[in-house]
Amino acid sequence: MPVKFRQVHADAGSRARAGELITRRGAVATPCFMPVGTLGTVRAMTPEELQAAGSRIILANTYHLYLRPGHRLVAKAGGLHRFMNWPGPLLTDSGGFQVFSLAPLMSVDDDGIDFRSHVDGSAHRFTPELVMEIQEALGSDIIMPLDQLVGPDAGPDVVAEAMERTLRWARRSRAAQRDPGQALFGIVQGGVDPVLRRQCARELVAMDFPGYAIGGLSVGEPAEAMAATLAATVPELPPGKPRYLMGVGSPDYLLLAVGLGVDMFDSVLPTRLARHGTVYTWSGKLVLTHARYREDLNPVDADCGCYTCSSYSRAYIRHLLKANEILGIRLATIHNVHFMHDFMAAMRQAILDNEFASFYRRWLSVFGSHGIMEPWRGGL
Amino acid sequence: MPVKFRQVHADAGSRARAGELITRRGAVATPCFMPVGTLGTVRAMTPEELQAAGSRIILANTYHLYLRPGHRLVAKAGGLHRFMNWPGPLLTDSGGFQVFSLAPLMSVDDDGIDFRSHVDGSAHRFTPELVMEIQEALGSDIIMPLDQLVGPDAGPDVVAEAMERTLRWARRSRAAQRDPGQALFGIVQGGVDPVLRRQCARELVAMDFPGYAIGGLSVGEPAEAMAATLAATVPELPPGKPRYLMGVGSPDYLLLAVGLGVDMFDSVLPTRLARHGTVYTWSGKLVLTHARYREDLNPVDADCGCYTCSSYSRAYIRHLLKANEILGIRLATIHNVHFMHDFMAAMRQAILDNEFASFYRRWLSVFGSHGIMEPWRGGL
Repeated sequence: MPVKFRQVHADAGSRARAGELITRRGAVATPCFMPVGTLGTVRAMTPEELQAAGSRIILANTYHLYLRPGHRLVAKAGGLHRFMNWPGPLLTDSGGFQVFSLAPLMSVDDDGIDFRSHVDGSAHRFTPELVMEIQEALGSDIIMPLDQLVGPDAGPDVVAEAMERTLRWARRSRAAQRDPGQALFGIVQGGVDPVLRRQCARELVAMDFPGYAIGGLSVGEPAEAMAATLAATVPELPPGKPRYLMGVGSPDYLLLAVGLGVDMFDSVLPTRLARHGTVYTWSGKLVLTHARYREDLNPVDADCGCYTCSSYSRAYIRHLLKANEILGIRLATIHNVHFMHDFMAAMRQAILDNEFASFYRRWLSVFGSHGIMEPWRGGL
Repeated sequence: MPVKFRQVHADAGSRARAGELITRRGAVATPCFMPVGTLGTVRAMTPEELQAAGSRIILANTYHLYLRPGHRLVAKAGGLHRFMNWPGPLLTDSGGFQVFSLAPLMSVDDDGIDFRSHVDGSAHRFTPELVMEIQEALGSDIIMPLDQLVGPDAGPDVVAEAMERTLRWARRSRAAQRDPGQALFGIVQGGVDPVLRRQCARELVAMDFPGYAIGGLSVGEPAEAMAATLAATVPELPPGKPRYLMGVGSPDYLLLAVGLGVDMFDSVLPTRLARHGTVYTWSGKLVLTHARYREDLNPVDADCGCYTCSSYSRAYIRHLLKANEILGIRLATIHNVHFMHDFMAAMRQAILDNEFASFYRRWLSVFGSHGIMEPWRGGL
């Protein structure tokens, strides 16, 4: 298997687990957060800054890189690692989410997905085979098969059809894989229907992928629906393989999914919030551009050891953000990414200490937008 | 004197000189280029990146910091060095240029200058005393007295009146100075009239400032007029004091002014050009966003040792710039600032080797927008 997963400890009071994801470019402690480098750059950060902030694995978007600068150019440059100067593990997604969420005039048939570029309106078609070819050109360490997403309001037939198609495309993707050094994950779809999710998970597990992603969540469904879907899906997945919940990155949802046994996460949220002036602290979120921080000479978070908090005040960062200075975005981004990794590390320690349930309660009270208590007890 | 200048060597074939500017925050080899951190940040760079690129002294704008975030806040934060985390020498300008170039509805009388903020249109008044108070609050190491600029089309009476006023304001600024640790330079004005420039320089020299700035150039006058003005002004200035040409930063004008005996320079040009995709190389300027660099996997400049050139290709930086990614701006900015310092260091070495005249010819042919040969021979 091109990636391996080792479960280090299972929390005694929840379904959370601490583990280690071993890739050809190094090991990553789990649960882990992966910053998103959509276009081959985690917005505003260098690879060295990512590493200093604690990033061990990052994500890039197949859809975006296919459109700009094109996967052939990236291959010519020696692959995405070399092109963007990132030495660690790289995960690329399938583009399924982007053509669902970004690209207008999408039409789907069994062969693939027609879409128009959100950049210039040009027409394109993704097939499972092309998406594999693109990711082979990018040279990412973990790759995803093309999947079909549906919105939270889709009817049962549409959800079932998209799930079945995603399964067929998973088989075609595996058949199309040429580089055995890349770890192709299976993606579980099935909307918020626990029956469909379980069926999809079982069929993918029977195909024995090196890891499993859970897609199609965080697309507008209520928190309870996400929790119930994860509670139904995760137990179907083998304990010896990594579990990756796609597109989730707010602290409260991370708590929820880790409590239900998920290992890997990605989201643009920490970097996007930072660009708009919102930073995470161990006391909750702050909107630094608020007038109340005008003369606040404290660091963003006195308990944070990141570059930003070691040298700059809230007042300085606020000044930069108000004046649209790039350094303001940089400092807020560095802090938020560092915070996410600290938060994941703290969750991992709570798991190792068999204290995840109390960790969950404590930090849900700080970051909670949902109020789901002890989701691992079932009956959701 | 709060700063000292030591002339290390005078070139045998021009008026260029190599020296050392000694400040309370360290020594700076001259001729030197000062990146501009208008709002307390050299756009897109951290202090550590500036130092790695070779920056030893940087500039900030009194006018901008007075408006945002306000000098009182900066003082409360412990001064500009601490606020922006820059440990080296800092020079602040007087705001005279900004109220001349940026602020609408300006009116000038002997007491001061009325202007409206370019940010929100609010009304303000700069007097020599207020400008000293602002710079004292900022805590910069080298400070400038309020001066009055005039455009290249101003009539002789207007130019003379502004020069006389600038002299009176220099006296008032000195009288208003409260922190003897700050080095207050005199600013020579007088348009492009060599008689007025000589007169202004002599009167300032009689006042014995620790350094002399030459202001009011690079405001639209022909290159020949700038050269003639410098040729008339610089010989009036004492060899034991630093000479600073304000607002000049293109390689060809740096060659011209260094050849005429100037030691210090500042300009937004290298950082502004970088943000728009133009980079300096030892073969001339490149516009990285051009299609011809789409698949160019070479570094920006194979002879450059900067962070950007050590790890990234033109194709990658072009991709980032085309997609409006902040890292593209960062990488281009780091390179241009590094290049400027390398260019100044190469000029300094040519001076030490008594080869400035041939250095001048060679690099004017690469960077020349003017064709002024051997300006130090007089007869301009």
